[in-house]
Amino acid sequence: MTEFDTAFPPVTAPDADAAAAARVRQSRLTKPPGSLGRLEELSIWAASCQGVCPPRPLTRARVVVFAADHGVTAAGVSAFPSAVTAQMVANFDAGGAAINVLAEVAGATVRVADVAVDCDEPASPSIGAHKVRRGSGNIAIEDALGAEEAMAAVAAGRQIADDEVDAGADLLIAGDMGIGNTTAATTLVAALTGAEPVAVVGRGTGIDDQGWMRKAGAVRDALYRTRSVTRQPLGLLRVCGGADLAAMAGFLAQAAVRRTPVLLDGLVVTAAALVAEEFAPGARAWWQAGHRSTEPAHSLALSHLGLEPIIDLGMRLGEGTGAAVALPIVHAAIATLASMATFDEAGISEET
Amino acid sequence: MTEFDTAFPPVTAPDADAAAAARVRQSRLTKPPGSLGRLEELSIWAASCQGVCPPRPLTRARVVVFAADHGVTAAGVSAFPSAVTAQMVANFDAGGAAINVLAEVAGATVRVADVAVDCDEPASPSIGAHKVRRGSGNIAIEDALGAEEAMAAVAAGRQIADDEVDAGADLLIAGDMGIGNTTAATTLVAALTGAEPVAVVGRGTGIDDQGWMRKAGAVRDALYRTRSVTRQPLGLLRVCGGADLAAMAGFLAQAAVRRTPVLLDGLVVTAAALVAEEFAPGARAWWQAGHRSTEPAHSLALSHLGLEPIIDLGMRLGEGTGAAVALPIVHAAIATLASMATFDEAGISEET
Repeated sequence: MTEFDTAFPPVTAPDADAAAAARVRQSRLTKPPGSLGRLEELSIWAASCQGVCPPRPLTRARVVVFAADHGVTAAGVSAFPSAVTAQMVANFDAGGAAINVLAEVAGATVRVADVAVDCDEPASPSIGAHKVRRGSGNIAIEDALGAEEAMAAVAAGRQIADDEVDAGADLLIAGDMGIGNTTAATTLVAALTGAEPVAVVGRGTGIDDQGWMRKAGAVRDALYRTRSVTRQPLGLLRVCGGADLAAMAGFLAQAAVRRTPVLLDGLVVTAAALVAEEFAPGARAWWQAGHRSTEPAHSLALSHLGLEPIIDLGMRLGEGTGAAVALPIVHAAIATLASMATFDEAGISEET
Repeated sequence: MTEFDTAFPPVTAPDADAAAAARVRQSRLTKPPGSLGRLEELSIWAASCQGVCPPRPLTRARVVVFAADHGVTAAGVSAFPSAVTAQMVANFDAGGAAINVLAEVAGATVRVADVAVDCDEPASPSIGAHKVRRGSGNIAIEDALGAEEAMAAVAAGRQIADDEVDAGADLLIAGDMGIGNTTAATTLVAALTGAEPVAVVGRGTGIDDQGWMRKAGAVRDALYRTRSVTRQPLGLLRVCGGADLAAMAGFLAQAAVRRTPVLLDGLVVTAAALVAEEFAPGARAWWQAGHRSTEPAHSLALSHLGLEPIIDLGMRLGEGTGAAVALPIVHAAIATLASMATFDEAGISEET
């Protein structure tokens, strides 16, 4: 295996001319300059991603939930049993999960990809189309994936991004579902930022103090196992990641290659984003941070990427839910730039 | 004039049984308990306001923008000329302002009430139906309103709330438009919280340092003039408020009397909310804070009311825009409680 097998083409930057035009237009809208705060910045970003000012409304926002099990649950790191991952995939498929409801409110649609759920059969052939394996190794004591599996998972995420962009997606959200996945994600964040495990391990779905100590121990052991691959993004995904994190990293990098904006979700997606930025430097210019979760490693990953979350509502569910709740704010930002009257159009006096 | 003329009937609390049922239902939804953070609390609040669990989707959210001019602009406290107030009312009427665009994104409609714009004719008969006077006195040197005018303005806001609730509004948002209105609002906040003017005066629509000093001086002078009425909400509105602040106070108090939930906006609306809570103790249980603006007095007023804003995006426009941007988050919260599957329905394992 070489890193070459996951080489991404160079990421091009969002359109600077469209951004400049958006900045000028913002200054002409009927409001004091800067008074829409973050909405102005988001509208300029949207214009630059679309390469046009004013930006078009988002009509094909798409959430892809990457589902996988994690062998590290054997170390007692989660409050929920592994069986929940497959049960929740069925819940996504039936439309009953939080992300289904929140995506609909935000005008987005949901796709689920079982890349490594530990079940006999995927919930449907399309959900299992990119399945890499059943579960992953217990990263506290062994690699999460084999070398071929890691490459296959990254390629699966790339393929899914390509498929969605080709189908017309104008904004992508990655979501996660997998009991134990915050343990792997936290290890990745620690490996890529140099943080101490005890400083960044959170409570995931809601573990108690004993569970937190087991989780911190698992992260510490997994992190120790990464010392031979610290500069290799694919190696990190193999040693301490998982098929979901690898697929999300491929998905996020490829979205940027395809010049498609992304709203990041919580810890798991943002950990994958750290790896994606290693795969495809400059990808982060195509991303906004949807929300800040309660996981300490999430804030660390966001600041490492230089991203400021749009909302901060104490959410910690994953699935893409934080990004989905932030999506209407992006819609709102685009709408102001596209639809507000200018001072000239409205015949309004300007600052004295 | 007596305070009796603005006496409100007692505010009844939101429904505790519906809140309890909502709390139980939240614990049965297919997600770790608490993992939707603030959304859970908002969904419980919505259920308690509606008196039913699960709560119904909001289909008749309504923004009322209260427009008025302020004589204190003569003191050089704003970056914009007073003429902008009337021009912006026309812009609201034409649908070109930020609140028009943001309300539409959020599924709300907009009404404008000219209660004291300094213009020859209101933009339309319906917009001017509750007009109290042209502009208001310069609060740095004189009362904003006469006694009868203050009562008439409170009554106008009450009437507008009644009209909107009778027309079926299921959530109300008050917005403000008026050059100079943050000077009056800041004085009200200082009077009701005991804050020092220099600690709470902000830059409004964007004044420079010289303008800020003039504004702080005006607030200081107006605050000095309030010392005879500090315990009288109607007196404060008369001495240092204005017809817009008085109407909004009546509107917010009456919404609570009518058991209708409200999303507060920025400084001006929240200053009126401080007065409304004096008029109708307990009203604040019917309110959520939509956003935190950049005005220092806004944060002070929110903490005085014990309200935590939903979003914090550096906005400082008024018009109800911060609340309108937060409204989709309330929609999202309601949708999760109403539409997510429960553990039993989805056959999903619970915490171990």
